[in-house]
This record gives sequence, C-alpha cells and structure tokens, in this order.
Amino acid sequence: MRINNNKAEDVKIAYIGGGSRGWAWGLMSDLCVEEAMSGSVYLYDIDMEAAKKNEVIGNKYNHIKEAKTHWDYKAVETIDEALNGADFVVISIMPATFKEMYSDVHTPEKYGIYQSVGDTAGPGGIIRALRTVPMFEYIANKIKENCPDAWVINYTNPMTICVRTLYKTFPQIKAFGCCHEVFGTQKFLVKCLKHMRGIEDIKRQDIKIQVTGVNHFTWITKATYKGEDIFPVYREFCEKFKDTGYTLEPGDKNWANGAFFTYDKVKIDLFLRYGYIAAAGDRHLAEFVPGNWYMKDPETVKEWEFALTHVDWRIEQLKERLEKSEKLYSGELPVEIKETGEEGVKQMKAILGLGDFVTNVNMPNRGQIPNLPYDAVVETNAAFREGTVSPVMTGDVPEEIYPMISRTVAEQELIVDACVTKDLKKAFMAFSIDPLVRLNPKDAKKLFDEMVENTKEYLSDYII
Amino acid sequence: MRINNNKAEDVKIAYIGGGSRGWAWGLMSDLCVEEAMSGSVYLYDIDMEAAKKNEVIGNKYNHIKEAKTHWDYKAVETIDEALNGADFVVISIMPATFKEMYSDVHTPEKYGIYQSVGDTAGPGGIIRALRTVPMFEYIANKIKENCPDAWVINYTNPMTICVRTLYKTFPQIKAFGCCHEVFGTQKFLVKCLKHMRGIEDIKRQDIKIQVTGVNHFTWITKATYKGEDIFPVYREFCEKFKDTGYTLEPGDKNWANGAFFTYDKVKIDLFLRYGYIAAAGDRHLAEFVPGNWYMKDPETVKEWEFALTHVDWRIEQLKERLEKSEKLYSGELPVEIKETGEEGVKQMKAILGLGDFVTNVNMPNRGQIPNLPYDAVVETNAAFREGTVSPVMTGDVPEEIYPMISRTVAEQELIVDACVTKDLKKAFMAFSIDPLVRLNPKDAKKLFDEMVENTKEYLSDYII
Amino acid sequence: MRINNNKAEDVKIAYIGGGSRGWAWGLMSDLCVEEAMSGSVYLYDIDMEAAKKNEVIGNKYNHIKEAKTHWDYKAVETIDEALNGADFVVISIMPATFKEMYSDVHTPEKYGIYQSVGDTAGPGGIIRALRTVPMFEYIANKIKENCPDAWVINYTNPMTICVRTLYKTFPQIKAFGCCHEVFGTQKFLVKCLKHMRGIEDIKRQDIKIQVTGVNHFTWITKATYKGEDIFPVYREFCEKFKDTGYTLEPGDKNWANGAFFTYDKVKIDLFLRYGYIAAAGDRHLAEFVPGNWYMKDPETVKEWEFALTHVDWRIEQLKERLEKSEKLYSGELPVEIKETGEEGVKQMKAILGLGDFVTNVNMPNRGQIPNLPYDAVVETNAAFREGTVSPVMTGDVPEEIYPMISRTVAEQELIVDACVTKDLKKAFMAFSIDPLVRLNPKDAKKLFDEMVENTKEYLSDYII
Amino acid sequence: MRINNNKAEDVKIAYIGGGSRGWAWGLMSDLCVEEAMSGSVYLYDIDMEAAKKNEVIGNKYNHIKEAKTHWDYKAVETIDEALNGADFVVISIMPATFKEMYSDVHTPEKYGIYQSVGDTAGPGGIIRALRTVPMFEYIANKIKENCPDAWVINYTNPMTICVRTLYKTFPQIKAFGCCHEVFGTQKFLVKCLKHMRGIEDIKRQDIKIQVTGVNHFTWITKATYKGEDIFPVYREFCEKFKDTGYTLEPGDKNWANGAFFTYDKVKIDLFLRYGYIAAAGDRHLAEFVPGNWYMKDPETVKEWEFALTHVDWRIEQLKERLEKSEKLYSGELPVEIKETGEEGVKQMKAILGLGDFVTNVNMPNRGQIPNLPYDAVVETNAAFREGTVSPVMTGDVPEEIYPMISRTVAEQELIVDACVTKDLKKAFMAFSIDPLVRLNPKDAKKLFDEMVENTKEYLSDYII
Repeated sequence: MRINNNKAEDVKIAYIGGGSRGWAWGLMSDLCVEEAMSGSVYLYDIDMEAAKKNEVIGNKYNHIKEAKTHWDYKAVETIDEALNGADFVVISIMPATFKEMYSDVHTPEKYGIYQSVGDTAGPGGIIRALRTVPMFEYIANKIKENCPDAWVINYTNPMTICVRTLYKTFPQIKAFGCCHEVFGTQKFLVKCLKHMRGIEDIKRQDIKIQVTGVNHFTWITKATYKGEDIFPVYREFCEKFKDTGYTLEPGDKNWANGAFFTYDKVKIDLFLRYGYIAAAGDRHLAEFVPGNWYMKDPETVKEWEFALTHVDWRIEQLKERLEKSEKLYSGELPVEIKETGEEGVKQMKAILGLGDFVTNVNMPNRGQIPNLPYDAVVETNAAFREGTVSPVMTGDVPEEIYPMISRTVAEQELIVDACVTKDLKKAFMAFSIDPLVRLNPKDAKKLFDEMVENTKEYLSDYII
Repeated sequence: MRINNNKAEDVKIAYIGGGSRGWAWGLMSDLCVEEAMSGSVYLYDIDMEAAKKNEVIGNKYNHIKEAKTHWDYKAVETIDEALNGADFVVISIMPATFKEMYSDVHTPEKYGIYQSVGDTAGPGGIIRALRTVPMFEYIANKIKENCPDAWVINYTNPMTICVRTLYKTFPQIKAFGCCHEVFGTQKFLVKCLKHMRGIEDIKRQDIKIQVTGVNHFTWITKATYKGEDIFPVYREFCEKFKDTGYTLEPGDKNWANGAFFTYDKVKIDLFLRYGYIAAAGDRHLAEFVPGNWYMKDPETVKEWEFALTHVDWRIEQLKERLEKSEKLYSGELPVEIKETGEEGVKQMKAILGLGDFVTNVNMPNRGQIPNLPYDAVVETNAAFREGTVSPVMTGDVPEEIYPMISRTVAEQELIVDACVTKDLKKAFMAFSIDPLVRLNPKDAKKLFDEMVENTKEYLSDYII
Repeated sequence: MRINNNKAEDVKIAYIGGGSRGWAWGLMSDLCVEEAMSGSVYLYDIDMEAAKKNEVIGNKYNHIKEAKTHWDYKAVETIDEALNGADFVVISIMPATFKEMYSDVHTPEKYGIYQSVGDTAGPGGIIRALRTVPMFEYIANKIKENCPDAWVINYTNPMTICVRTLYKTFPQIKAFGCCHEVFGTQKFLVKCLKHMRGIEDIKRQDIKIQVTGVNHFTWITKATYKGEDIFPVYREFCEKFKDTGYTLEPGDKNWANGAFFTYDKVKIDLFLRYGYIAAAGDRHLAEFVPGNWYMKDPETVKEWEFALTHVDWRIEQLKERLEKSEKLYSGELPVEIKETGEEGVKQMKAILGLGDFVTNVNMPNRGQIPNLPYDAVVETNAAFREGTVSPVMTGDVPEEIYPMISRTVAEQELIVDACVTKDLKKAFMAFSIDPLVRLNPKDAKKLFDEMVENTKEYLSDYII
Repeated sequence: MRINNNKAEDVKIAYIGGGSRGWAWGLMSDLCVEEAMSGSVYLYDIDMEAAKKNEVIGNKYNHIKEAKTHWDYKAVETIDEALNGADFVVISIMPATFKEMYSDVHTPEKYGIYQSVGDTAGPGGIIRALRTVPMFEYIANKIKENCPDAWVINYTNPMTICVRTLYKTFPQIKAFGCCHEVFGTQKFLVKCLKHMRGIEDIKRQDIKIQVTGVNHFTWITKATYKGEDIFPVYREFCEKFKDTGYTLEPGDKNWANGAFFTYDKVKIDLFLRYGYIAAAGDRHLAEFVPGNWYMKDPETVKEWEFALTHVDWRIEQLKERLEKSEKLYSGELPVEIKETGEEGVKQMKAILGLGDFVTNVNMPNRGQIPNLPYDAVVETNAAFREGTVSPVMTGDVPEEIYPMISRTVAEQELIVDACVTKDLKKAFMAFSIDPLVRLNPKDAKKLFDEMVENTKEYLSDYII
C-alpha cells in the first residue's frame, strides 16, 4: 500500500468467507464508488467454487459506468495466499451450515424455548460459539503468521465472541467488529423525528449518539439532533406507539424483510421501562432478556409483533441468492451499485489516514466502560484516525441497565473461556444460566447434550 | 471506654432492636462469659415493653455462676439515648411485622413463584428492602449525630442492602455486617471430613477458608484443613451424596430446625456444577439462581429436599418465644449460657485491641474483589485489629460463578438506589429481572403493585 | 443558538479576559472567516477599558472584505452578563500582574533556581497557582449559576491546575483546556521530514499523533505520516542535530521569537534518552525535569541553547501590544485576518455538530490513561462530536517516562488541593519536592515565604 | 510436613545464603524456642565452607537447655538439594562482595553524592539491583523447578526489587519480603509514649499501625495504643525534639550501633512537614528524598545527626563476625538464645495454620493500594492464615506523601524492567532521575558508567 495524492493505492484486502452471496457483493459495490482507494481483494473461502464466482463478479464492477476506481478480485486456494501482506482482513463467514443452525434455533423449541435469531445469545448463540471459536482461533493464528499488522474487520456472529477470540489467540491483533444494528436504530430515531416533529430528510448520521453495551444488546445513552436532546420526543413517540408498535412506515425493505419483521414494540417497551434506547432490532434484543418477557411462546411473540426467523426461510432464501449468484456470474443479471449503508470502506479510509471518523465498533474493553470487565469485548464509539482506532471514554453503564448488561458480559466471557479451553462442562455453566434457557439443570443438560450432538462434527477438539 | 490490664471497661453497646426475643439473649450469653470486656448495653426498640423485659433478663446474667464479667442492661426510650457515646452499635431489627413478611413470601405464590426465605433476594427480598432502607437511613443519620466513631454491627436482612444503606447515608460510618451462614458451611465441611476421612473433633474454625461473593450467596474458593486442600475430598463427598443429600446426620438442632430443613442437595449440586463451594444454607442459595432450578414448584423443592419456610410457622414460633420471654422475665425459667457460635463479641474484642482476628464480614468493596463494582457491599475475609477492620485482598470472583454473582450485585445496587431515591419505577426494574420472578413485564407489574400495596404503610416517602 | 442549513446562528460566546491584547484578536480573526457560525461575543475583563476597546476592534472585523460571517462584540460590566445563556465560555486571563510574575520567575534566582517560563511548573508555577485557583473557583461558580450547560475552553496557565479547579468547583462543568505546544511539535516533525526526506508542503495536521501526559509535559508515543512510522527518521534527525540543535530553519516568527528562542536541543536530548517525543517547547520541557539537567545556571541554559524569558521583556512587549491596541482601536492600523493556528473555532463547530474532529485537549482522567490518577487533568486526544468531547483510550504512560509524568501529576494534584483548601503548608509540601527547587527544607521555606509575600495581595483567603 | 496435635513436624526450610554470619544464627535461635514446629533446615551458600560451619553451629542449638524443639541443619552443595520439597525458602544473600558495595556507596561521592546505606535507593541501590536481579531470576526459576508451592521469605535488599523479580520470573510464586524497619518505628513510638506520657512497658506490638508505601520508605498513616490515636502525642514529641533529635535514650544497642547512629531528626522533620509517620530509620528515609535535603554534603548529614555508614566499617565488622563464627563453630563460644525481634518464625507458624496473625510485608500490589501501579511491590499489612498471606485493603496513599511515593514506585518499576531486560540504557533512565543523583545528564552518565564498570563482573548478561 502507498498513499499518493491523498489516494491509497495497492491496498490489499483479504476477504475470509469470500464466497459469500450477499456481504461480498455489498463490499464490491462500496469499494467501486470510493475513489480514494484502489488495489486488490483476495477472496478465500472453504467453498473455492463460490470464491471463484465472486472473483468473476467482483471484476465486473471495474467495468460499470459508476466505477470510480479499480480493484482486482482474485480467488485463492489457501488462506495464506489471501492473508499474506494484507492491509485489511474482512471476516464474514458462515460457521458450519444451515443444518447446524437449524438445530441451534429449533431444537430448543422442544423445551418451549423460542429464539428469534439464534446466532448471538441464547442456547443457539452458545452452541454456535462452540463451533465458531476454533475457526476464529485458526484465522487469528493465520493472521499472526501472514499479516500481523493488518487491520481486521469482523462481521461474523456471535460478534462479541468472535472478536474476543481473535484477541485471546493473538493479543497484538488490530481487530474490531462492525454491525449495522445501531445504524438501524438511528434510522428509527429519524422516523420518530419525522413523525413527531415533521422534520424531513434527516440522515441517520445526523443523529449523534453515545453507545454502550455489547453487540446486539447495545444501548444509546445520549442522542441529539442538531444539538438537541432527542430523548423527550422519543419518549412521547414511545408512549404513543407502545400498544400498537410503530406501524405507519415499515422497516427497511431489503431482501430479508418478511422473516425479519418487527414493529419495534420491544425497543419501545425497553425504553419506557429502563429509560435508555435499546439499539438493535427487536429480534436481537429479545434474546438478551428473560425468555418469559417477549418469547415465552409463539403467541407472546405475536403479541409483541416481531418475527421468529425460521431457518427454513434462511435455506429458501439462500437458494434465491445462489440463483442470483449464477446470474451475476453469467452476466444474465448486471452487477450494480447499491449503497449498503455499511461503514467498512469508510473505516478503511480513515485508518489509511484519509479522513478522521467516529463510529461505533466492537473492541476489547481497556477502560472505555469502567464498570465492565477489562478485555471483554464491548460496543462503544471509537475514533478512527491514521493507523489507530481508539475507543472513546464512554463511562459506566448506567445502573438501570447494568444488571442486564453485566450479566450478559459475564456469560459471554465464560462462553469464550469454555471454547478456548475446549471445556463443554464450562460451556454448560453458561448455557444453564442463560435467560432464554428457563429449565431445571437436568432438562437443561439434556437439551445441551442434544444440541452439542447436532454440531459435534465441528467440535472434535473438545473433551466430551 | 478505657483499656486496663488488657481488659476493656465501660464499653457502651447500643442495641437497636433491643427488644428481640432471640438474638438479644444470645448476645447477653456471649457477653457474660467474656472476661475481657465489661460495660453497659443500651436497649432501644420501637416496642419499649419488649426492651424493658430484656433489661430485666439481661441483668439477671450478672448473677449466674458462669458470669465472668458485669454488664448493665438498660432499656431507653429514645434511639439518641441508646446511641449517644456508644462504642458499638448492634442493629438487629425486624422491619415491619410478619403481616408484611407474609405478603413478601406468599403473595408471589399466586404467580407460581415460591420462596424459601424471602428476606434477602427474590421478590420478597426486594419488597422488604423498600421498607427497610428508610429505617436504616434513619439509623445511620442517628449514628452520625450521636456516635459517629462507633463501630456498627448489622445482623438485619437484607444484609447487603442494609449495610450499603448505612454507608450511602453516612459514608464515614464504620459498619460491617455479620452472618453465620458461612460458619454453617464450615460445619458442613467438618461433617464431610468426619464422614469421608473419619476425622473427629474438628472445630469449624479449623477449616480455613477464602470467601467471596455477597451475603447468602457467598462462595468458598479455597478451603484447607491442617494445610491440606479440602476440595478433592469434598468432591468425593458430593458425588456420593448428590442423589440423596447428606442425610446421615441432621443439621443443627436449634429452635428452627423443622422449617429450616435441608439435606444440602442444592449446595452439593452447585459444587458439582460450578466447582466452588456455595457457602450458605440451601434455602438461601436457591433464591439467587433461576427459579426454575430448585423452586419451580413445591414438587421441585421436595425433590431437592429443603424447606420453604412458611410465615405461619414464623408467627407460631414467635408465640413460643414470647412465652419464653415471659418466663425468663419472671424467673420461671432461669437465664443460662448458650454458646451462640456468633462472633460479635470476639469482633468487638479485636476492635478494642484485645487480639487480632480474621473472619468473614460484609463491607463495601474498596478493591478486595476487583471485578465487582466499587462500593457495593461484598462478603470477604477481613482482618480485625485495634481500631480497624480491613478486608483482605480476595481477588476476582472466578469466571465460573461470576455471571451469577455479578448479576446479583448489579441488581442489589439498583435496588438500593431505588430505595434511597424512593423510586418505585426503578425498584420495578430490579424486580422484573430477578431470577425468581419469571414473569412477563405485565404480570410482573401486577405482582409488584400488589406486594407494594401490602407494605405501603412503610412506604410513605416513596413517589407512587 | 440554533442550527439552520448546517450553520449555527445566534451562538453566544463569553470571553473571560476579553480585554486581552493578543489572544482576543486571534479569536476575532478566526471567527471572522468561519462561515458556519455567527452570533455574539461578550467581552468581560476586570479592565473594562480594555474590553471596550476590544468591542470596537472586534466589530471592525464585520466590515473587512474577508469576513464570511457576522459577530457582535459587546463589552459588559459584569461577568454574569457575559456568561448568562452563553453557549461557549473562553477563559484567557492574566492572573494578577507582571509584578507578581516578576517575583514568580526571578525571586528564585537568588537561590540559584532559574526558570524559562515560570507559569506552569517549578516555584513560579506553584505560586502562580496559589493566586489563580481562587479566580477559577470564582469563574466556575459563576458558570454554574449562569450557564451550567456551556462548553468552557480554557487557555490560561497553569493549564492543568486551572482545568482541574473548574471541575473541582463545579463537577458537572463541560470544560477542556487547549494549548498549541503539541502543534508546535507537529510542525517540528514536519521540518524533520522535510530536512531528512525532502518532503515538502506537509501540513502539521498530516502528522498523526498519539499524545499522553500533562500540559507542557506532553509526549508523543506514536507518530505517522501517510501511514508510516516517523520515529525512525526522527531518531536519525535527533542523532544528527543532538550537538548543534536544529538551527537550519528558525522557529515560528511570531511577535515573541527573541525571548522564546530555542534550537530544540532539549527536545532532542529527551527523545534520545527516553525514546518518546517530548511535545512542547524546550522552555516548557526544561521546567518538568531536575533543574540540574538544563537550567543549573545561565551557562547551562546557554549550552542547551534556549531562552530564559525575562519578565522585563514581557513588560516591554506588553507596551508594544498596548500601542497596537490603540492603533487598531483608532483605525490607524486596520484589523486583518491572521490564521492563528489555534483550534478553538474548529472545536466549537464540532461541538455544535458541524463536523467530527479529533485533537488533543486537557481533560480529567476518567480512564483514558489508566496508570495516572482518576480525575487528574491529563492531555490526550479526544473526539469532538455534537454535544460531546470524549477523550480516546490512550493506555498507560510508557514506563520509561512514567516516573517523570506520575511525579508531576502527583505534585499538581497536591498543589490543587493546597489551593482549594487554602492551605499554604500543603502548598509548601509540593514546593519543596519540585525538581527545580533543589534546596534544603529551610532554604526552600525561606524562598517560599518570600514568594508568597510577593503575591499576598491575591491570597487573602489563605490561612497564613 | 504434617500437622500433629497442633504441631508442624518435618517442616523443611531451605535457606539460600545459609552461610550467613548473623541472620542465620538469629533464625536458629528463633526456631529453637518455637515448640510448635520442627524439621530440617537446608543451608545453601555459594560459600559452601560457611554453610558447613553453620550446619555445625545450627545443630548445637538442639542441645542447649532452652531448646523446645529439634531442627536438623544440613549444608548442601546444590541449590536444588536445598529447595527440593521445601515448605519454606528463606533468602538472605549478599549480592556480590563488599568490593562492589564499596563502589556503590563511595564512587558517587566524587560527584558530591553521599549515601547513608546505598543498598536500596539512590545510585548505589540501582547498581546493586543490576547485579542482584539476575541472581533472583535464577533463584525464582530454581524454586519453580523444585518447590513451586513453597512459601518464600526474602530478607535481601533492595527488598522491593528482589520480591518484584521473584514474581516477574515465576508469577505463581508465593513470596513476600520482610523487614524490621517498621518495627523500629513502633519502638520509637513506644519511647515517645514513655517520654511524653510516662507509660512504661509497652511492647512494640501494642502499637497498632496502618502502613503504606514501599520498603524503607514506608509510612504509618494511623497508629493507636489501647485504642487511642497516637498522632497528637507524637506531634508534641516531634515539636519538642525537632531541633535536638531524640537523644535521651539511644537506639537499639546491637552490633551495628555506631555506624548506624541516628537521633531520628529526619523522621521527626518528615512528620512535621508531611503529617504522617515515616517508618524506617533516618539513614533509609534520607535516600528517598531529594539529596539536597539531608545529605547535601557531610556537614548537612552532621546537622541532621545520622550516620553515613562507611563500607570500610562493614568490612571491619565482617571480620568480627567471621571470628565469632569460628568460635561458635569450635565451641569456644556457646550458642545462645537471643530474641531477634524478627517475625519469620511466627509467619511460618501462621502459614502452617497454627495461629492467625497480621503484620506488614512486601508483596505485589493487587489493589491494596489503589493509587499505586498494579503488581508493583508495596509494603502494607497482611493477614497470615493457614495457606494464605492476604494483604489488607489499605486505600490510597495520602496525597501529601503521594508525590514522593509514586515517584519512587515508578522509578523502581523502571529499574526492575531494565534489569530483567538487561537494558543498561533503561537503567540509566532511572539513574538520572533518582533524587540523590543531582547531576546533569553527562555527568550522570559518567558516574553511571564508572559504577557499572565496577560491578561488571556480575553483569555479563547485560548488553553493554
């Protein structure tokens, strides 16, 4: 990489999980329109076929009329080739297959435990962690070998646990995790201001926020628009829509709307009860609080009007994306620019010294939240500058939400430790106290064992 | 007070709740046989009649043959008289009456929530805190006025919340809380050594322990006997009795045995699952973990073989104690020496400079447990020396039990803050996340409101 | 204040020390060319005459051709008028007169103690603190009364002590301190790159830095240019110029050059010995280390080739500025735009939500430097966003420079405490351990007493 | 080791430096009269001859009439033999010879730097650290190999640095450092009480104290006798003797009195100036503060009436001890019981579970002093119980003495790091800022180089 005329040239990005049908195309689109950077993207995937298709698709972006720069896409057979000398590493993988995810999400239903997502928290999140952590240990070691100075951006869930594993495995790593859930909440605040005050055309970035907590259970403790505190108007808004949810304007219409449906009633309820803005989709939020609250049974979920995303739907949806992949690959469908709203490219630019930037990321706690454990991965704002990403001092988690957040962090720390020590007994300690798992120890153990069995192909390192 | 020939003379003890029929007599007995101290005990109680009876009873102790010292007992009409110039203040009160406690313990049963004690944690503990905190604020202010340098020993539950309130109200107070639950666990370890190794005549003090956590949810992280680690033998013991509980030798046969019954199966289960020794009675322990574990319903409790102490039993039992009080007062029954096993008198001696001493107490966290919040009240060992009670460095709570303990502390901190700010909304935040309260927000609110209503006579300062 | 079309209108700035002949004109110039903000500047000064002159001078700026906005300047008779409803408060005062400063700087010379500046550290800095703190207590209380939500920017020395006093007096204050010494060091690094690598036209902002420490004894622990580590080339540079100093290109040619002269030999020496870049002028740096190093006597100073700024020179220089003031006031000299290089206006913009921005400021340590005392004022980078200034996590001070910095912070904390408790005995504790004061306790006391006597007019609140 | 009838049998003590003529005999005497322990003492010394003599001398103790127990003394040829299976390790070595110590103490005199002891702080302490740390790294590794669970008691200076090195090398080590300087200060307080209040026969242990700081620069922040605060009477005492020193009753008359002479004027001066009781001999205290205060030159030392202990005296004194050794060995002089006043044996007993005990020790800071760096070795009270030595929560160092103590700790941390990384450049960083070294960087470097040269035989691992 070198900087020339305020442009970064020869930037090398390694994309782990580069066969992705979704995220990868989004990155291609975002890179294509950013004139300040050019270079190459190395696509590595355990599905080499998929990576190769994305190589072809990626290179098509250089030829569309909106292209402002040039990126060489290159599928490679080994992770070393991808990582060697990389400036940035993007990790966006699917740990195992939908078969395992099916078990994560739906096996607990036999015990009356429902999950809306099942990839971060709850029994599904824990079992997913068990198989994901060894993959991240592998990746971290490979980064250490091949590109110890690279900046690593993770998009994989369970986010907190993945980033924590990177740092546990290679403490000098320069990694952070990114997630758009907070952005979605900013957009929700935009809608609130539009509806309650008639203000049009606010961009989500105009809603300035302080964030704290952990990924998918992030909270906004301060929000302003043009210098004014939004909390009072948001309170009015929440009071108005607490019974119906905000139904006037549907959520983002992206490919996943149906199964991701929500009227934000959980978000509204949490604000009215705790006084801070829960900053993730209802489906995520519901997984961090006692299961009896919002997901006691499908009827309760219906009352709260959000979706339990069925894995069958995901499987179906993947088929569509595979078809789309074929069409993009063959040229039947042209590649096109679609703003993703993600900030990865902007973050890379800032790290390269091409513009300071403050946004929320997931990084180890080195004091930015003094009342959470040191080194646990937390989500706060951070300042991106040339060569540094420095979390800003965020202060203590407010006492009202501290019991829920500190509990979550302690559970996640225990999970990570169970995973890196390959200790299923310890994993079960976390499993049995998870607030979605409302079972007595014996039933909890039975469920745990069954779920472990269903993912055992990926747990060969564990002492069973 | 003055020290003469290694004896402390003219010691003044103020006993708040001095009309007690139980604790007070125990203290009388302990004081009576401690030759190194003499002085006066001022008994203050909102039930002046009861205090007066205890004055008479107390003074009888000076005339029994075992008496090694002299103490003047004196019932006083105002708390100021009791406190003025006191060297020590003992607080052992009953916050409100059994009528309120009845609601604390049994109202939740309508919602399927069972409680074994109901005075520390769970819905009962929270509602009890609401009415107890204002009393402790009053007492703390009175201490500040009358005897700011006195050492204050609290025995009242909810212990953690009471001690925390004393410090919040009068930060310079020299207070700590004492509880015998850990001693009971030491005795349990004595039985374990006797049964498994045939060692006889071990005193509980010979079991040396490191303790951490919070009152009634205290954990032993290290235990030795004559320098040897007890954990391996305790593990064998637990494996042996995990299904039956330890039934060979019943618990302490004191006045409360029936309703306090336990075979220690909860304690054993927690050890086998978490690897550390839970150091309180099963009835207390069960209230700090998810309600589904041990108290899902009366059948589950039966399986775990411990008692849900019914308040009717307590009412009945009080009658007996009232009768006993009359008999002691009239002389029909002679006062007698009964070793309580409590350490209050020994602690006073050490504070007076008559012998160093290390034991477990409840005090604000000033770093003795680095991974719990600063200032929260925690239970650890402390060194008692002339004029000082210094908690010893205990280190981080181990990660296995950290999720449960950190959650508890965060909830307790929120409760105390709700109580001192007289904010029922905040109290409900804690209530709804309590692991015994497994209700959706609406039902939780209904229960909370009903319980608050039942104790409202004591909540006049709260904004309702 | 209101935001309209990305412009802030009706901004009210209170300028405490608004009669200034220098800083005030710089602010006028900077405000004049910033089109995103307009409003009014209230000038308050104990020298009302001077403030009135500046009102006239300031308003002239609205009529020059470069003016991009409009600001009303208004001298006011009371500090309340100035502060009432202010959005920003700028504090730039001269504590007492040059007579007192003369004593601060030159009285110690009788004892062989030389000072290059005498307003921050050393005996002069301490005595100056004694009289400055009461002024800042007064200002902080006035801000609390009149504009508790205003953002306060301090430029007065001793910087650390002034900002610390603001927070001690009014803990909710939103204040930070700004100083251009670090910018000067960035410019020095620009020269280094130009000289050693031939790179032209680097702006100081292009040198990205991590800073740590305290004002005037700030250190750069990481510096990059276009992503490359500057430390190796700076090392070469320092080795090259360690004997001669960097003489090829003189320092900034501002009004003060002669008396502020330096060849940066101290800065170079500190880098070669400690491995980090001392980021202030040599005259400041020399005052934080043992007096024997660089200021044993005038000969030693000469060897190190920096100036001891004599207060006579300052007095002389003030006369020139007074003359300039008259000319600007009368119009004999036209007001003109001169970029100050200060960031105050940019900071205000960022706080108003008109552009994120990261720069170094002096703020209380809330964990940004974990190994310095909590609440002590430290200098680190901070992220400026709408409504917030959040220090970034900076990490521990490196052990090589930790002894010098931790000592300094501890001394400053003691000084502030001496000042707010008006305790001269405590002030002397700090005085006698200051590394410039190399005297035995008796001589130190004599000097201290004489210096206190010379400033006693401002110490009426102290117990003498 | 085993416990039988409250006695510890078969205790194995490894004595590193077991050829000692002084300390070793004291330990023999103390062990001989402690009936609760028996076993063997393995004497290892690089001077095998000396160890063998002590074997003979030690075994004689079993035959004197005062003997209450039996210990086998055994000189061994390898450190492994000594350590293998040891329960306790005592380290009391002389790092190098008096030749090196001569340079440590007297070489700086050429530059006008005087030292009263020269083995802890100041230039002498730093150079001594350079050669001592590798020895302690060796010992720590040997302990790790041979007896990782043994308790290690260090008596060697520089105390702080030696203990820190043990923990840096083998983090799981169970080590603490003991020093009698604080005891001496307790005895001084006894004299104060006797003189000012006429109280006779106080034992030093009756003076209950809170201690904080680092070894030889330890401070008493609270002291009581029979519950009463001693500070007021100590203040009177200090005011009375501030000019003359306390001359009425000389110090302890042990073998070293002449060269160790002091009238405690430094101690008194520090109390009057800083308000806390400096708890070490004047000769030690004077080495932690600016050299100009008490040791500017021999005249100043004379004024303060304490001794600069010349190494010639030590050499002379060693001869006497060698003669005594011969006589004890041959039987010309009988071995005899002399209470040392040291607490080593009492500490061992407590660790073995034979009696709780609170005293001051040097251990890593794990939060007992929150405002000093984590892991730095500090001196505070600690509770000794079976199997544990737990520092008690001591709280922040008071601000009045914090600048001096925090500076010292930071310097010591830097020295240790220089020593373990074998980095003389880093060692010089510490050297040049030491408050006794009042030299410009060039002279400081010359002195440093000369002193290093004089001890180079022991610095073969360093990069020079």
